[in-house]
Amino acid sequence: MTYEKKQMISDLKPLLEQSSLEAVGALVADLHPADIADIIESLTENEKRLLFQALDARTASEVVVELSDFSRDQVLEGIHTQRLADIVDDMPSDEATDFIAELPAGQAAEVLRRIDLEDTEDVRTLLQYDEDSAGGIMQLELLSARVDQTVQDAIDAIRQAKDEAEDIYNVFVVDAQNRLMGTLPIFKLLLEKPDVVIESIFEPCPLIIKANEDQETVAHKFRHYDLVSAPVVDDDGHLLGRITIDDVMEVLEEETREDLLRMAGASSEEDMFYSNQIFRISRLRLPWLLTNMFGGLVTGYILWLFKLTVPEAVTLMSFVPVIMSMGGNVGIQSSTIMVRGFAVGAVNPSNILKMLFKEIRVAAVIGCTCGLAVGLLAQLWHGSYKLGVVVGFSMLGAIMSAALTGTIFPALFKRIGVDPAISSGPFVTTANDIIGVLIYFGIAAIFYRLLLW
Amino acid sequence: MTYEKKQMISDLKPLLEQSSLEAVGALVADLHPADIADIIESLTENEKRLLFQALDARTASEVVVELSDFSRDQVLEGIHTQRLADIVDDMPSDEATDFIAELPAGQAAEVLRRIDLEDTEDVRTLLQYDEDSAGGIMQLELLSARVDQTVQDAIDAIRQAKDEAEDIYNVFVVDAQNRLMGTLPIFKLLLEKPDVVIESIFEPCPLIIKANEDQETVAHKFRHYDLVSAPVVDDDGHLLGRITIDDVMEVLEEETREDLLRMAGASSEEDMFYSNQIFRISRLRLPWLLTNMFGGLVTGYILWLFKLTVPEAVTLMSFVPVIMSMGGNVGIQSSTIMVRGFAVGAVNPSNILKMLFKEIRVAAVIGCTCGLAVGLLAQLWHGSYKLGVVVGFSMLGAIMSAALTGTIFPALFKRIGVDPAISSGPFVTTANDIIGVLIYFGIAAIFYRLLLW
Repeated sequence: MTYEKKQMISDLKPLLEQSSLEAVGALVADLHPADIADIIESLTENEKRLLFQALDARTASEVVVELSDFSRDQVLEGIHTQRLADIVDDMPSDEATDFIAELPAGQAAEVLRRIDLEDTEDVRTLLQYDEDSAGGIMQLELLSARVDQTVQDAIDAIRQAKDEAEDIYNVFVVDAQNRLMGTLPIFKLLLEKPDVVIESIFEPCPLIIKANEDQETVAHKFRHYDLVSAPVVDDDGHLLGRITIDDVMEVLEEETREDLLRMAGASSEEDMFYSNQIFRISRLRLPWLLTNMFGGLVTGYILWLFKLTVPEAVTLMSFVPVIMSMGGNVGIQSSTIMVRGFAVGAVNPSNILKMLFKEIRVAAVIGCTCGLAVGLLAQLWHGSYKLGVVVGFSMLGAIMSAALTGTIFPALFKRIGVDPAISSGPFVTTANDIIGVLIYFGIAAIFYRLLLW
Repeated sequence: MTYEKKQMISDLKPLLEQSSLEAVGALVADLHPADIADIIESLTENEKRLLFQALDARTASEVVVELSDFSRDQVLEGIHTQRLADIVDDMPSDEATDFIAELPAGQAAEVLRRIDLEDTEDVRTLLQYDEDSAGGIMQLELLSARVDQTVQDAIDAIRQAKDEAEDIYNVFVVDAQNRLMGTLPIFKLLLEKPDVVIESIFEPCPLIIKANEDQETVAHKFRHYDLVSAPVVDDDGHLLGRITIDDVMEVLEEETREDLLRMAGASSEEDMFYSNQIFRISRLRLPWLLTNMFGGLVTGYILWLFKLTVPEAVTLMSFVPVIMSMGGNVGIQSSTIMVRGFAVGAVNPSNILKMLFKEIRVAAVIGCTCGLAVGLLAQLWHGSYKLGVVVGFSMLGAIMSAALTGTIFPALFKRIGVDPAISSGPFVTTANDIIGVLIYFGIAAIFYRLLLW
């Protein structure tokens, strides 16, 4: 695929330079829309616009939804409103809605005026739902059949709808009031006689989604039941639309991305790959860094206070970096495993204590290993048995406490309804820096003062 | 759902205590296998085994593949081989193969002897493929029709296969030598007359997978084309099996999990939620921590050396934690964004310089902000204008260099074929600790020595 793409791009470039749009259109005619989008991403701004112009409205509508925000803005800049309306007309209702929602208000109104009346109504309906709800990701195009209809009726409905609805795997079965009764896999229709009544062959739906449910909850349920499509209903059970697996995958990918960025203390709002708004990105990242900076200053202040009370302070200080960074890393390991466990549903209130206990035991093993190593090294380096003991035990203590905070913080955050991903990264690291240094100097204070006196 | 589950568990517990297996079976009869698996996860070891015993072989086969490794081992412990064979008999070929591959060799052979001959052959065929290849995740159950057959022939084939193959969305079209020609969505069969020849209505496949392709490559292509199933062929184009969207989602989830754990310096091998092998987990995590420890010790050694040359060392040292931890965090932010960008294919050789440039500019903004803040604070705290300048510029330098290493390391790792996720976390942090401290002391050395002399 990669080779073909390179070839295709080098074939396209001269044609685009000559603005031979017809030849360009012919060249990409057999490509999958996702591949055309992929090619567009690799072109210059001007080439992108030319290639997009060369596409017919149907293809353009399939390509534009695959583009990055960055490239989409480029190909749509200065586009004629009628062309935009033609493109939107060919989109499924959910994509048309998302697309229109991102247009400037004036342009959106103009496009809505020019597309089919039915599509306009669909878009207006979908715009009512919160974009993070099931209603916000569902599409209105679906196949339904009344429970008292026959197999032949259902087949006729499919014949009528075949240009509108894509990816049809099921017919949803409803009663006379459009209330959802169940589902009927398409292949079952093939096996039944035309006059069989649907009532006798439909199946219950393993999952029925309410329009106001949160999209992430919906995505996890979808995964739980391994579905490819599911019906969305209102509070009274009336069939509204359907959600398909590709919507769900987008939600799950978005969620993973958010978690990862939050754990790194970058923001999930950061449009990370294409955005060039340097100040906006900086502002999104700064809050975490300032938390972190505060923690670093507190740690430094403790160092400073300590210097005043213990004469061996400088020798001891040369082990501060290793104790701090080990605590930080162990904390991140524990919290990553907790956050991931919550995200996939593998950690829950019933096994949280078991997880904690496991992490503590792992930390004990790691802490003894690292404590012994660094303690021996300290003893050899400075020739002080006491220093070795202090550094070694501090390492053990810092690692154990880091594993504890790394496990407990995500659990606490989860408990109070905050995304546990936030607690990993800067937050846990900062807490562990401070705790680690306190443990170190606490132990040092005991050994160097109490034992010296 | 959660409420129902709690209710169900409290209804089940007394029945399980009395070992009323029939009543248990009746209670869970209407539940989805995924829900039964979910309930089993919340039970005690003995209850798990009893509930699993109460299931018929078909349901048990659907439940067992949804269980965690931990619970699966528990319910299968001491199970009769014939019961095991019955359960495997009801699984699709890909799941049966994975399942048998995990059994002890003797038990696997015994199960293979007892299941249907056809299933045995399927499993033996699938066991030949690398478990990380397309062949390793494909299933053999599929619908195919010869290109010279009619719609009615295809429908008859579906009728015959309906108990074997699940989730049928397409019929794969082959020639007389079983070489893949294309695909035919099931709903199209409904709309055609029975005597239409398939040749005139089939479509090309957007994606044809080779059996020896890497599963992650396959998963990304699947996502790229938004498919729900795709055919797998051998090197000569013969149809071997198919891969469905649920296989793909598992691969993608596994990949995300691996990336995340690698970034935290935990190993992807760590069976993180259920494993109780404390020493094994510790051994998997230790290599990263020891790298980190080495870095911490080097940083400490630099501190120690520095103490000997500059009298103000102790005052300067109290700012070491804040400079180290800021550098570490900025580095993690940059590398997370790079790693994520590579993972979703949004960062590639063509825009890598743009990414680098963007991160540098963001770091400049962040560095100036934090440098100014911490520099002012240092000046106010210790009343030394010089100290403020040294600390402020060091912060700027540490943040800029951290953004650089955070961006360049993942790119270098990617270039030499190592998973960039490894470079994030401990590796980048350790490098940044050392570089940050060197920058700090370098600047301090210039100001405190050169200016004092």
